[in-house]
Amino acid sequence: MRVLIVYAHPEPASFNGALRDVAKDVLCAAGHEVMVSDLYAQGFAAVAGPADVVVRQNEDVFNLGMEQMHASQTEAFSADVQAELDKLMAADVLILQFPMWWFSMPAILKGWVDRVFAFGSAYDFGRTWENGVFAGRKAMLSITASAPEAAFKPDGRNGDMERVLWPIHAGILALCGYSVLPPFIAHGIPFIGEEAMQAELERYKQHLLAIDTTEALFFHADAEISDYRLAANIKPTTPGQHRGPRWHLPE
Amino acid sequence: MRVLIVYAHPEPASFNGALRDVAKDVLCAAGHEVMVSDLYAQGFAAVAGPADVVVRQNEDVFNLGMEQMHASQTEAFSADVQAELDKLMAADVLILQFPMWWFSMPAILKGWVDRVFAFGSAYDFGRTWENGVFAGRKAMLSITASAPEAAFKPDGRNGDMERVLWPIHAGILALCGYSVLPPFIAHGIPFIGEEAMQAELERYKQHLLAIDTTEALFFHADAEISDYRLAANIKPTTPGQHRGPRWHLPE
Repeated sequence: MRVLIVYAHPEPASFNGALRDVAKDVLCAAGHEVMVSDLYAQGFAAVAGPADVVVRQNEDVFNLGMEQMHASQTEAFSADVQAELDKLMAADVLILQFPMWWFSMPAILKGWVDRVFAFGSAYDFGRTWENGVFAGRKAMLSITASAPEAAFKPDGRNGDMERVLWPIHAGILALCGYSVLPPFIAHGIPFIGEEAMQAELERYKQHLLAIDTTEALFFHADAEISDYRLAANIKPTTPGQHRGPRWHLPE
Repeated sequence: MRVLIVYAHPEPASFNGALRDVAKDVLCAAGHEVMVSDLYAQGFAAVAGPADVVVRQNEDVFNLGMEQMHASQTEAFSADVQAELDKLMAADVLILQFPMWWFSMPAILKGWVDRVFAFGSAYDFGRTWENGVFAGRKAMLSITASAPEAAFKPDGRNGDMERVLWPIHAGILALCGYSVLPPFIAHGIPFIGEEAMQAELERYKQHLLAIDTTEALFFHADAEISDYRLAANIKPTTPGQHRGPRWHLPE
């Protein structure tokens, strides 16, 4: 398989860097072809905007989605976006390697998504969720979090990690058709010491070696949806969907 | 009050731009002092890294948190970070105005958070949640989403909007001490037409005029936490915390 690791950390000597190297080594040794997008090393431009396309559809008003669609149809992406898009399209497996900053990804990686997961290329009308562009391919997060695991338990201080990851798991990866594999999460890295860090690298190795056989996370299928909501007879069984009370928004 | 609107949209003529203008006008007319950070217009650099500080604590290995702490203690932030930090520190009310891209904020705004919500300045040891740096101040999201409201209902296709917003509401704003006001959310903007858009601007006006009296969203207090989790006698009553089953991660 062809694997693309998108790596977003400013420091090569970081634990995230070590995780990237482990993945590269393990997957190469297992016979896979591994590509790495090292966003900091590449100086990847993080901000989606007019510079993403070389020919504008509308010179007066910039609409990102519309310009992405136009560039998809006319092969008019900037060289840096096209280069990443080529790698993305070539990859059977996508691994996003990043430190969790503010319950989400670093801006440089979010910008990679904003710019490279382009309308008309990575998703399209009628080509989302299980009918998405990347249906049949796999994606996986490998992340570090400075807080201990307890803080991300269902009743943890920070909220349930599977809900924290919903915007990425569902809103980016599953929405574009990927089978999303269970994430690898290394908790409390700044505080656990060298021996435990080595154990975490070993645990990641085993996690990676199981990619072929690991069951993907469950997301509801389009057939279960009616008027943008789960059909009445479908029981919500994901971290993002439910029929319980709301706490922050009106019912 | 002093209000800081952080606005993240590449197109001044966008509906997000109109929302920004409404907020500026309404709040000024109500006697508030309004500052605007127009991230695209400023060409704000989105990528946290070594350039955020002018004097490094550690020249060999870059650790963002440690360098932010050092820069906080020695006033060594780069000019662009310091300028935004000054505005942030001066603001009684923070409004983030952005289009929801991939169930989250545009990279340029995420980068503003990564760089400006600096360790040692916007949060610190023991200065989080209700003891956070911004305790007593208010923060609010104003966002647009292209999907219709139904898709973000509790059983919606995209998952419950209040869970989608948890990483921002809890992981950035409440964690740093802000009282988080209910968000303003404009759904389906590309599809609703001019008249409905005008109605949305009017609805936002009323939302803003109620800032003084609107009750903040509920988050659990530190006194309810024991070993990083809600104490056994505390019932979880937020979008992020629960004691029900998990769907994507091991129990």
